[in-house]
Amino acid sequence: MSEAAYVAVDWGTSSLRLWLMDRAGRNVAERRSDEGMMAAAKSGFASVLQSHLDALGAAAGLPVVICGMAGARQGWVEAGYIDTPAPLAAVLEQAVVVSGQPRDIRILPGIAQRDSRAPDVMRGEETQLLGALGGRAAGEVTVCMPGTHSKWVHIRGGMVERFATFMTGELFSVIARDTILSHAVAGAGHAVDSDAFKTAVGTAFEASASVANLLFRVRSGQLLFGGSATAARETISGTLIGLELAAALPERVPETAVTLIASGRLERLYRIALETLAVPFRFVDADDAARRGLALAANAIWKT
Amino acid sequence: MSEAAYVAVDWGTSSLRLWLMDRAGRNVAERRSDEGMMAAAKSGFASVLQSHLDALGAAAGLPVVICGMAGARQGWVEAGYIDTPAPLAAVLEQAVVVSGQPRDIRILPGIAQRDSRAPDVMRGEETQLLGALGGRAAGEVTVCMPGTHSKWVHIRGGMVERFATFMTGELFSVIARDTILSHAVAGAGHAVDSDAFKTAVGTAFEASASVANLLFRVRSGQLLFGGSATAARETISGTLIGLELAAALPERVPETAVTLIASGRLERLYRIALETLAVPFRFVDADDAARRGLALAANAIWKT
Repeated sequence: MSEAAYVAVDWGTSSLRLWLMDRAGRNVAERRSDEGMMAAAKSGFASVLQSHLDALGAAAGLPVVICGMAGARQGWVEAGYIDTPAPLAAVLEQAVVVSGQPRDIRILPGIAQRDSRAPDVMRGEETQLLGALGGRAAGEVTVCMPGTHSKWVHIRGGMVERFATFMTGELFSVIARDTILSHAVAGAGHAVDSDAFKTAVGTAFEASASVANLLFRVRSGQLLFGGSATAARETISGTLIGLELAAALPERVPETAVTLIASGRLERLYRIALETLAVPFRFVDADDAARRGLALAANAIWKT
Repeated sequence: MSEAAYVAVDWGTSSLRLWLMDRAGRNVAERRSDEGMMAAAKSGFASVLQSHLDALGAAAGLPVVICGMAGARQGWVEAGYIDTPAPLAAVLEQAVVVSGQPRDIRILPGIAQRDSRAPDVMRGEETQLLGALGGRAAGEVTVCMPGTHSKWVHIRGGMVERFATFMTGELFSVIARDTILSHAVAGAGHAVDSDAFKTAVGTAFEASASVANLLFRVRSGQLLFGGSATAARETISGTLIGLELAAALPERVPETAVTLIASGRLERLYRIALETLAVPFRFVDADDAARRGLALAANAIWKT
């Protein structure tokens, strides 16, 4: 096993991932936890981090580079924002130091779009963009980053020119859990019902204004015609993803493949959705992108 | 005080309204309660009804006519549906009797749209439509009935030809209460911020596909530029109502005023929204409409 040189941390709202990295940017050991920013704000960021470093066997002086919501105002230390149009390379240069710690800990900044007609913020995605595209990405590309708050990002010549956040994942959660549709999805299995999902993506893409009606039809359709809980869940999911795509796809860079940065279940759903709409894309694993982005930052900060 | 002839009851999912009515269809006494269908399903419909009849001083043999969710499968006695195209007058003829009761109790049916491409159901609104338009409404009209589940109904020659339900009110509740936007609206006052509401209605009406992004901007806008909790709440409300109008208005009967059946806060919001979009409408109070519809049913059933 090669020697650890630093620790890379993706500290999101509700989850925490740590990678012990060697000098060559290879992943030596890994941990995942649900002690995200919200949990750590209660129990203390320093002690949460130390407990995971101990579990990874990280040496006492090993430096740590962090991206994500740990740098928010309500996080550990506020790491500020780079304003659009934002050179991705600037993310590498504006990390803040967490003072009073027994080791060197840095948190990377987010990106803000201070446009009063389309205000927006990201924290964590800028590091995935770095990892997926590199600090000096040439050309012009549209990036889709599915999540609780999906981001669609327009990049040109290594700059984040503009971006938009869609509450797609969070809307799915509250609609499936807390509305009348919770009855329709109760007992849904883990399987993906691709047909129900694809139909819903297509319908919502074509009739996006009707989304509040398409959602209710999940309930009334089950009441009048039956149908499985799994199909109901996939219809809600496809409706909300189709809605997102209806707004985002017309804004993409024409004649180029969308860069899809995703992992897990969302990777699968967005692949199916983009294929359903015949949109070409290239895929980058989100975890790999975050780790590579943090490695670029570590290299820039500590010349590892 | 004129003598009571029957009791009219609008028994919804989460609320219950009772009116003691005289032979001429005048309201003699009234009660409101939050013992809706969901609460009564636990404590028992018969005992809930009797407690309110006692409080109203209703005589032992006084008959009762009920509309709403008390007639759902999970309600008191299932009252079925009339299928579209549904003559409104049929609602008067197909009430079911609640058997085994010490008095004559009838529950009115709902209306179902058994179209697999646009399945839909209503319970309670058919009685408001009766009360607002009469059983033999001539002509062609589009009716807007705001609520937890807003209905848009196309009526021609006394028939419900088609309708669509929008989960607008329920989406507002869960988005304001259970998502990241709950922070943005925390502490919002009772006042209506008409400017924020109107702007949001217009924006969502024009860019309805972007609704999941427009909602996130409530959060990012407050983060980057400040803004009151009340403005944030009205922006969420206006965004969702604007979305509903973007789907429903293009389907309305051209060149006619929309019939708005509403009351309370929703009446005020939909008035402002329709005015913002320069849509002509005529207004009917929702409580009056329900009571008049129940009176028509009582007249038909008991020849009062």
